[in-house]
Amino acid sequence: MGEVPESHPRFASLMARKKLTEAAAAGLLADSALIAHGRGEAFDYLLQERTCEAARLAILACAARLSSAEYPVISVNGNTVALAGPQLLACAAVLGCPIEVNIYYRTPERMSALLSALDEQKTEAEEAYPELKSKIEGVEILGENPDARIPNLEGPRANCHHEGIYSSDVILVPLEDGDRCEALVSMGKTVCVIDLNPLSRTAKTASITIVDELTRCAPILLDALRDSSEMTDPNWDNGHNLKEVTKEMLRLLD
Amino acid sequence: MGEVPESHPRFASLMARKKLTEAAAAGLLADSALIAHGRGEAFDYLLQERTCEAARLAILACAARLSSAEYPVISVNGNTVALAGPQLLACAAVLGCPIEVNIYYRTPERMSALLSALDEQKTEAEEAYPELKSKIEGVEILGENPDARIPNLEGPRANCHHEGIYSSDVILVPLEDGDRCEALVSMGKTVCVIDLNPLSRTAKTASITIVDELTRCAPILLDALRDSSEMTDPNWDNGHNLKEVTKEMLRLLD
Repeated sequence: MGEVPESHPRFASLMARKKLTEAAAAGLLADSALIAHGRGEAFDYLLQERTCEAARLAILACAARLSSAEYPVISVNGNTVALAGPQLLACAAVLGCPIEVNIYYRTPERMSALLSALDEQKTEAEEAYPELKSKIEGVEILGENPDARIPNLEGPRANCHHEGIYSSDVILVPLEDGDRCEALVSMGKTVCVIDLNPLSRTAKTASITIVDELTRCAPILLDALRDSSEMTDPNWDNGHNLKEVTKEMLRLLD
Repeated sequence: MGEVPESHPRFASLMARKKLTEAAAAGLLADSALIAHGRGEAFDYLLQERTCEAARLAILACAARLSSAEYPVISVNGNTVALAGPQLLACAAVLGCPIEVNIYYRTPERMSALLSALDEQKTEAEEAYPELKSKIEGVEILGENPDARIPNLEGPRANCHHEGIYSSDVILVPLEDGDRCEALVSMGKTVCVIDLNPLSRTAKTASITIVDELTRCAPILLDALRDSSEMTDPNWDNGHNLKEVTKEMLRLLD
């Protein structure tokens, strides 16, 4: 991909794509990760690549739940690390919570590549948010030695840390798959997801669904976590919020 | 990707994905090809992964234009070869027309990989359609030594063969990009495209747009080309057809 000028109308989208193709080349992603990203791109296209008002409310609701949680945790996969690792490290720093790497197609190579990438991203995050430096340094990165399992879920993606995902009461999982989302909800957790498809099983199952593009909403989430006056969570109705987002998409098609 | 049973509700979609990840591993695709496929997947999801009636009409209209053309040609890129090379070879055999490889990110390695892949797919096509064997054998594969350029188009994707794309009156281009579609239409050609996004510049610019998934519509197109009684082309209104497809998508979101 050649140089893209910042003035390009789809600059942010092309930059996200660049981050992902580079992450794929670096071995951070599974084969189908780029396809999954493209699927998201299409829904974002229907949102006109903007954070709609319904998504903004969902971000604020997630911030409220995460801030008032007893054991919050942020679960990340390859696409998440590639797209928004530094921003989520900053969120974890503000929350004082761990980040746990949990991937669908778990191989030792990808796990160690992702753990290293997050370690390197700590420096990037510290440069971007110097006022959070010591807190970012202290963010615990989990995933290497899982010692627990998510019940009712097949395969290695069920592996997790007891002091991480397993014991969390509120979990933020950007780009989650439907099965795992259901299993986490069944464990009684408040599950906050970021998913561009408002019709997906993940979107419908989660406690709070942010239908927005990850690189666009992560900084908004961070701002909300840092400024608690911004948070709102008036008896969150996730189904209603999903309908509002779908209306946004219909506007373009109609 | 593990084994997927044929009974899986999304079997066809997962098989398409498998073909593409294998093609990527074989060097047939550009970096962003999988992302583009994923974008298509999302729109296909809105079509409930079915060929809608409007798409069927567009396929029949394309068949009519191709069959009555003086110099038809089929232009293919990496994703097209990976997904439907053998079916398009059979279409070219019925039409007695060449297939020309024309790619956006042209490198000698990818060009030769694609030309070899098409050669190998001839055997596959001959096995699938034994009654077309000698015609398939005779399909000319162009792309190696372009000797003409598409006017008003920058870069190597403008390179084409004089006896192929350049001189064609009707061209079938699955998965086309917007710029090249516009340039081909400006040359006065009838441009038939296959594009899952009914709002894309390609979809809006083309003479006839089939909004359908390539592996699903290629066999229908082949059937229509072989059975001329099936063809219809009553003063094709592409804008109207696109609206009909969009209505299908709205039905799911609504």
